[in-house]
Amino acid sequence: MPRRIIIDTDPGQDDAVAILTALASPEFDVLGITPVAGNVPLDKTVLNARKICEVAGRPDVTIAPGCPRPMVRDLVTAEYVHGKTGLDGYDLPDPTMPVSDRHAVDFIIEAALSSGHKGLTLCTLAPLTNIAMAMVKAPQIVPCIREIVMMGGGHFEGGNVTGTAEFNIYVDPHAAHVVIGSGLPIVMAPLDVTHKATIKRGWLDRVGAVGTPACLATEGWLSFYERYDIERYGDTGGPLHDPCVIAYLLEPELFKAKRVHVAVEIASELTMGATAMDWWRMSGKAPNVSVLHDIDRDGFFDLLLERIARL
Amino acid sequence: MPRRIIIDTDPGQDDAVAILTALASPEFDVLGITPVAGNVPLDKTVLNARKICEVAGRPDVTIAPGCPRPMVRDLVTAEYVHGKTGLDGYDLPDPTMPVSDRHAVDFIIEAALSSGHKGLTLCTLAPLTNIAMAMVKAPQIVPCIREIVMMGGGHFEGGNVTGTAEFNIYVDPHAAHVVIGSGLPIVMAPLDVTHKATIKRGWLDRVGAVGTPACLATEGWLSFYERYDIERYGDTGGPLHDPCVIAYLLEPELFKAKRVHVAVEIASELTMGATAMDWWRMSGKAPNVSVLHDIDRDGFFDLLLERIARL
Amino acid sequence: MPRRIIIDTDPGQDDAVAILTALASPEFDVLGITPVAGNVPLDKTVLNARKICEVAGRPDVTIAPGCPRPMVRDLVTAEYVHGKTGLDGYDLPDPTMPVSDRHAVDFIIEAALSSGHKGLTLCTLAPLTNIAMAMVKAPQIVPCIREIVMMGGGHFEGGNVTGTAEFNIYVDPHAAHVVIGSGLPIVMAPLDVTHKATIKRGWLDRVGAVGTPACLATEGWLSFYERYDIERYGDTGGPLHDPCVIAYLLEPELFKAKRVHVAVEIASELTMGATAMDWWRMSGKAPNVSVLHDIDRDGFFDLLLERIARL
Amino acid sequence: MPRRIIIDTDPGQDDAVAILTALASPEFDVLGITPVAGNVPLDKTVLNARKICEVAGRPDVTIAPGCPRPMVRDLVTAEYVHGKTGLDGYDLPDPTMPVSDRHAVDFIIEAALSSGHKGLTLCTLAPLTNIAMAMVKAPQIVPCIREIVMMGGGHFEGGNVTGTAEFNIYVDPHAAHVVIGSGLPIVMAPLDVTHKATIKRGWLDRVGAVGTPACLATEGWLSFYERYDIERYGDTGGPLHDPCVIAYLLEPELFKAKRVHVAVEIASELTMGATAMDWWRMSGKAPNVSVLHDIDRDGFFDLLLERIARL
Repeated sequence: MPRRIIIDTDPGQDDAVAILTALASPEFDVLGITPVAGNVPLDKTVLNARKICEVAGRPDVTIAPGCPRPMVRDLVTAEYVHGKTGLDGYDLPDPTMPVSDRHAVDFIIEAALSSGHKGLTLCTLAPLTNIAMAMVKAPQIVPCIREIVMMGGGHFEGGNVTGTAEFNIYVDPHAAHVVIGSGLPIVMAPLDVTHKATIKRGWLDRVGAVGTPACLATEGWLSFYERYDIERYGDTGGPLHDPCVIAYLLEPELFKAKRVHVAVEIASELTMGATAMDWWRMSGKAPNVSVLHDIDRDGFFDLLLERIARL
Repeated sequence: MPRRIIIDTDPGQDDAVAILTALASPEFDVLGITPVAGNVPLDKTVLNARKICEVAGRPDVTIAPGCPRPMVRDLVTAEYVHGKTGLDGYDLPDPTMPVSDRHAVDFIIEAALSSGHKGLTLCTLAPLTNIAMAMVKAPQIVPCIREIVMMGGGHFEGGNVTGTAEFNIYVDPHAAHVVIGSGLPIVMAPLDVTHKATIKRGWLDRVGAVGTPACLATEGWLSFYERYDIERYGDTGGPLHDPCVIAYLLEPELFKAKRVHVAVEIASELTMGATAMDWWRMSGKAPNVSVLHDIDRDGFFDLLLERIARL
Repeated sequence: MPRRIIIDTDPGQDDAVAILTALASPEFDVLGITPVAGNVPLDKTVLNARKICEVAGRPDVTIAPGCPRPMVRDLVTAEYVHGKTGLDGYDLPDPTMPVSDRHAVDFIIEAALSSGHKGLTLCTLAPLTNIAMAMVKAPQIVPCIREIVMMGGGHFEGGNVTGTAEFNIYVDPHAAHVVIGSGLPIVMAPLDVTHKATIKRGWLDRVGAVGTPACLATEGWLSFYERYDIERYGDTGGPLHDPCVIAYLLEPELFKAKRVHVAVEIASELTMGATAMDWWRMSGKAPNVSVLHDIDRDGFFDLLLERIARL
Repeated sequence: MPRRIIIDTDPGQDDAVAILTALASPEFDVLGITPVAGNVPLDKTVLNARKICEVAGRPDVTIAPGCPRPMVRDLVTAEYVHGKTGLDGYDLPDPTMPVSDRHAVDFIIEAALSSGHKGLTLCTLAPLTNIAMAMVKAPQIVPCIREIVMMGGGHFEGGNVTGTAEFNIYVDPHAAHVVIGSGLPIVMAPLDVTHKATIKRGWLDRVGAVGTPACLATEGWLSFYERYDIERYGDTGGPLHDPCVIAYLLEPELFKAKRVHVAVEIASELTMGATAMDWWRMSGKAPNVSVLHDIDRDGFFDLLLERIARL
């Protein structure tokens, strides 16, 4: 039986690749996609989610728009990475598929409650506002959640928006605090692993050569996307942060994980949004997160291509 | 035309008196009551709200239950003040009136949007969780809110749950931060004014002498309620915190106010929830809150009695 | 036997009055005066201390200059209160008395060690930098200190430099944290009491009428000094903060005190330097400070005049 | 002309190797050694410094004991790494060389002032208490300091005492804040480089084979010392943190450095003492520290052996 998932997202090119991979995978029953403000403002992440579903040939997917701002802090966006639209690099026609009239917070609550005990998996590719809001509005959903697999945080890699904070956590650290403090099973894909998931030379050409709309879009988006990381970090390729979440659920053996205690910095402006990981278990606190820290890069990129090519 | 209000509350005996006063006042169109976790857990504040409406003879009022926990922190309650039920001091039968199936967060959003530009006044007697959650979920409600009149905070009076924090703000300081940061017109009734609204000797006897169910309940509740403050502060009477909000809306001339800049401490555990007021305007920051700091005590208690006696 | 004291100070007109009172009192053996940066920079507080001693006819007093900056934060000064010189209001000739070649930190250490067990009382009228530095440099002095009587902090009065912080604590909150955390007996004269020690109408005339140099200087300084508080707070007179410390040591029965737990805010910029007082003993923490909160104002001003007139 | 240096230290086996290397190097004029509380309490770091000088045949070196506690926080020590004595692993007789009667704080001040403009280099292997205390006591020393080369902090390596903080910074983060905020040229050897300076297999045997007292002691100390890191991190050898400071001054070309902005976390308990490094220059703040991040490991160990063998 396919795993019931919701994809919480702020597309973003790497979100797009994650979503395409998920939509191409029969292992999942994608109950819906819940855009949130993050890489770009909410209206754009909703628009982008629709474009992604349409290019995947899946206009039937429920897209439930979420919160246009973080829980406590002002919104910070990242057009300098993703471009003005959030999805620069490949032009798609204006989408025609509908948007749900359910708010993401309520969609998540209803999906959780209707999935039963440990029935729903949350795949989060964005600031955790929608998830935390759902947990505060209706804490009774917590036992209905089987697992949360999130892109976010960093330990050995430091931060990518400040010296110490990764973007998804930085944008809504309070939401991350609520989610990580929920007691639920959490798998975190931090920069430590996603910075090892850098696009291999030649891979984009292989994707483009497939020639399908989804593959052509992927090639275009990622060609634009990776210019930022190459310039900043001198990497050989852009890091595919968000697809790590979906790949982990499909083939967990592609990753190495370590269980550690993680807490989110919400008190100090200097280190706001840092994910303080007790990597060497010096605190005596019980581990609460499985942190992915290494990846079979070849297997990862083979998987993505194989799946997206199915669309 | 009566003023459209929502009463956000965690009854609590002083909440009860505020609600009775509002329900007795034709100046208001009480769209609904939105209980939240605070003085006691949510299930009890919902139950108490129903009892209060029934003793007021108003089983028609919409009661929309809200959030059972604060936005970021763990719930703290105050049974040591209000008793186990939150409404100790006068026994009422189990209520039979219905509870709305709308969540408070959604009820507030819908009421705001349907009230039009500056059409809705929020009267908050509790931690501000429901209000802030509505603002994060649907920021488009902000222009629909005319004014927020809140019980909370303290300057010269310090705190009543820690040395520096008042209960309503302390329980959900992040929500208070969001609400006060909304840019909306805010009137705050902090401990500075509510500690001057202490029950006058003989007043409870006068209330009881009216003999109506609402008055008898009021007499019973407040007799229980004021024992705590008398013991702790050595006051001559219990402070009627929450009724200040309703009284201000009915007769603002009973109060003195000063416009100052207020910010909520959300960074430090030591002073968490303190309302940092720039009372002497030393910061150069523009005032954002009208802070009530003095009261015509006689007029206040006359008003309460006159209104509650109408029920 | 007179009580061995050191006066740590940043004169300041109210410091000056405190110093004059102390120098006029046979109850004290003033081992030395240790100026620190505070109201004005160090070079001016040293100069002012010398002027004060000379106008008191006491050029023999040891003046040991202290730290020109706080322990951790940048120096903040208060020329807007005290004038450019720190001692505006009465011109005195350039002093000729020497300055000790001992640093205040070392002078305090040596005086403590040579005073024996509980042999030395510290009277602090300024940011606590010198005292805390001495305690960090040579913690063995702690048992030699009998008591610290400090002007600083505030509870019901809030702050006078920010909405929540009093000047002496705000300028060096880390030093205050160290001193209050030392475990020593501490008497604190916060704004709660010093704002009740406002100059009585007519008192300055009485002081001036004595006609001695010290009294004429006092009249001049305080006439200048109180203009600030009258403008800001609308008080009828300037608050004599620092003299409360000396007056308490001379006649403790002029004051009412309450023992409470006090902690200094050093984590949050918003409330930096606030003295979080557990006034109603809600924290369960043992009291560590005797906080003066009321004063016999007539007795206080009579005492000051009687003493200063002796010089 | 040899470079005038002071070695500020809390020995510690790796401190010992750094000190031996420095004492063996004619490039330095070691004005003195200033022990401070850190790895073990002050009395032990003073004792250990004396033992180290004696085994180096240098009982003439000035050892000026410093502060027994950090500036603001309580002392934390690390006997679990260094053993009960701080210098477990090789027994040495009780030292007979004298201890200076100057306090480290004053010794540093006097040495700086007598060294003239940019005349003194500080090599810090410990919490920065002594250095910061000297800067607060006598800020006029700042222009006399040519450079501070410090072991401390971490970016990609996270922390070694908490998940986010390195020991030297964690023990006295306020001192680190003062020193890094001084505006002086600072070279930092954080865990990022010192965790690459792990003892090579066979190197200790080569050291021991020299057969001199200093080499035998080094072999013994480090054999004990590296057991901790091997157990915790699974490394192949113990990291020689502190010798990186001395090696950098001797042969800077052994290291790679990057200039970045560094700030020390002093606000939040969760990340207290973290060195927030703007590694990718995203903050717009001007770099203030040269951070060593890579090392020629072979060259480093050859240098240490060659020098210590000279003693």
